[in-house]
Amino acid sequence: SRSINLAVIPGDGIGQEVVTQGLKVLSAVLPQDVKLETKDYDFGARRYHATGETLTDADLEQLARHDAILLGAIGDPSVPSGVLERGFLLKLRFAFDHHVNLRPSKLLPGVPTPLAGQPEIDFVVVREGTEGPYTGNGGTIRKGTPQEVATEVSVNTAFGVERVVRDAFARAQARPRKKLALVHKNNVLTFAGHLWTNIFNKVAEEFPEVTTEYMHVDAATIYLVTQPERFDVIVTDNLFGDILTDLAAAISGGIGVAASGNINPSGEFPSMFEPVHGSAPDIAGQGKADPSATVLSVALLLRHLGYEAEAARIEEAVSADLAERVGKPARTTDEIGDALAVRVAG
Amino acid sequence: SRSINLAVIPGDGIGQEVVTQGLKVLSAVLPQDVKLETKDYDFGARRYHATGETLTDADLEQLARHDAILLGAIGDPSVPSGVLERGFLLKLRFAFDHHVNLRPSKLLPGVPTPLAGQPEIDFVVVREGTEGPYTGNGGTIRKGTPQEVATEVSVNTAFGVERVVRDAFARAQARPRKKLALVHKNNVLTFAGHLWTNIFNKVAEEFPEVTTEYMHVDAATIYLVTQPERFDVIVTDNLFGDILTDLAAAISGGIGVAASGNINPSGEFPSMFEPVHGSAPDIAGQGKADPSATVLSVALLLRHLGYEAEAARIEEAVSADLAERVGKPARTTDEIGDALAVRVAG
Ligand SMILES: CC(C)[C@H](C(=O)O)[C@@H](O)C(=O)O
Ligand SMILES: CC(C)[C@H](C(=O)O)[C@@H](O)C(=O)O
Repeated sequence: SRSINLAVIPGDGIGQEVVTQGLKVLSAVLPQDVKLETKDYDFGARRYHATGETLTDADLEQLARHDAILLGAIGDPSVPSGVLERGFLLKLRFAFDHHVNLRPSKLLPGVPTPLAGQPEIDFVVVREGTEGPYTGNGGTIRKGTPQEVATEVSVNTAFGVERVVRDAFARAQARPRKKLALVHKNNVLTFAGHLWTNIFNKVAEEFPEVTTEYMHVDAATIYLVTQPERFDVIVTDNLFGDILTDLAAAISGGIGVAASGNINPSGEFPSMFEPVHGSAPDIAGQGKADPSATVLSVALLLRHLGYEAEAARIEEAVSADLAERVGKPARTTDEIGDALAVRVAG
Repeated sequence: SRSINLAVIPGDGIGQEVVTQGLKVLSAVLPQDVKLETKDYDFGARRYHATGETLTDADLEQLARHDAILLGAIGDPSVPSGVLERGFLLKLRFAFDHHVNLRPSKLLPGVPTPLAGQPEIDFVVVREGTEGPYTGNGGTIRKGTPQEVATEVSVNTAFGVERVVRDAFARAQARPRKKLALVHKNNVLTFAGHLWTNIFNKVAEEFPEVTTEYMHVDAATIYLVTQPERFDVIVTDNLFGDILTDLAAAISGGIGVAASGNINPSGEFPSMFEPVHGSAPDIAGQGKADPSATVLSVALLLRHLGYEAEAARIEEAVSADLAERVGKPARTTDEIGDALAVRVAG
């Protein structure tokens, strides 16, 4: 019989609330014969304040035993900026080699967008997750003095770029439109830019059916708001991907519905799924958070584990739920979760 | 009697066409007693192909003798990506220490925006222009092999950050709303992020009337499309500024009207003014380019040289011209230039 052994990291702020709904919908959608086991982990601000720890080697060993990880949100104003981001979120992505950071953007019917004319938006960003300016390379000399110099080093390897570019080509190949855009800034960041561009062009030869284009990151932000329908799959570096996917979320319904997967395609380590939004401490504990992004992240998780039909059912449920919201009073986090659980079970 | 000794760099693609209009409007707006001298420089793709040169020491010496520089656009598909950008545009910004890259965004009445609901947009981005990932630091080892590693180093100095932050505070202080946002990614790029944040907070103490906020660059892209009215002045690093100002241009009328100044506030070297758009080779020579961005760059140039009334007259003319376009057939580059020249003279 089948089983899913899931690590659950509610985290900070609204993390617990949205994860509860994600698990509710997961339980409701899974066939009877699939045994779901979950284990909660208390990472985040509370643990950091209590123990000074963010993510230990022992934690990583524990987490590695699971089939996948569901994360709510990590981050709290009581912790200095960077401590939990670098010490937990990025540490985990790097330790588990989550090099495919997958972020789909789809503007569902009835969902509000800041763009005029309700454009058709349906693309996915494949963001590199383990290199670029995110490696923590760099440093500071003469800190706090008028002579301070701080550097950040973007590290890009042929190994790291090729595997994520290849993944993106395969995803583009599998989609009806078969289009892939490389986004970089190769006219300024020429060292990294040439590496990305050369590998992209090389791998393109293996995917003759995929139509490719290159775009500078600044131009990409323009197209995202003026012609978002032109995008199908985008592959880009870690930092550009971070920026573009927040913008992508903003134009396709907001971060309340933006899901993401931090994927290790080899399966050597469990992949992690999380909403794109943060811990939103300002609305935590009030039942105001929209759990849809977390529920959609559960769909990505299920797809990753091979439960395609269940993933699709969740996506349809969220889509239907969003379409029905128009003109209705706001519901609580719990009510939305309940409604989605009913839909997927139905 | 007063005089302006201007270096003119038409450049590639539509550069020549838009610069012609910029100069036309400049001549029309200047009072009789101001003597305008211009000298053309042939930088860009043609010169590169003919001589292999992009910008020599002798060129820099020549350019340094002018009061200011007006640039059309540099870049052509016949030149490998990066050659003219690094070899001319960035070389000039660095050589003349253009550390304040000023990019105003104002959505003028009647101008189309991709955003729904015609929001109020009136802010200015102060982009650092001589540091960050633009320094060209970095390199490649094992080029072209599966073991290639390419790095890009973002260099940030207390000296460089403080002067641009101080400039931004002064600009915020001079505006009615007196608001300044620092945009960075200090939770990931912690070395540079802490430098920027600490200096920002330190300088803030000298400007008690300025309301400040900090925002991550990814979040800033969201706010630019969902709440652009919240911004007054933004100060940010070279790369984030590059990305945000293209997005800012897109939401406030497009790159057809986005002006910029590469300013050396000390006056040690001439400042350079240019439209944010590129050389647009696809429409070059067809009289289709909108010269408004160049004309507005001329306004920034005049303001920098102390001709505030003339700068304001140009801005009013462009604003009035844009408002009158609605529903009218498209005009040529030349016709728009003529109309603006008439307005500013009137
Ligand atoms: C919180 C932060 C480290 C993270 C990132 O920059 O990757 C977040 O913005 C995201 O996009 O998942
Ligand atoms: C052409 C390029 C070097 C330049 C930049 O990145 O600064 C351009 O995009 C700009 O914004 O002026």
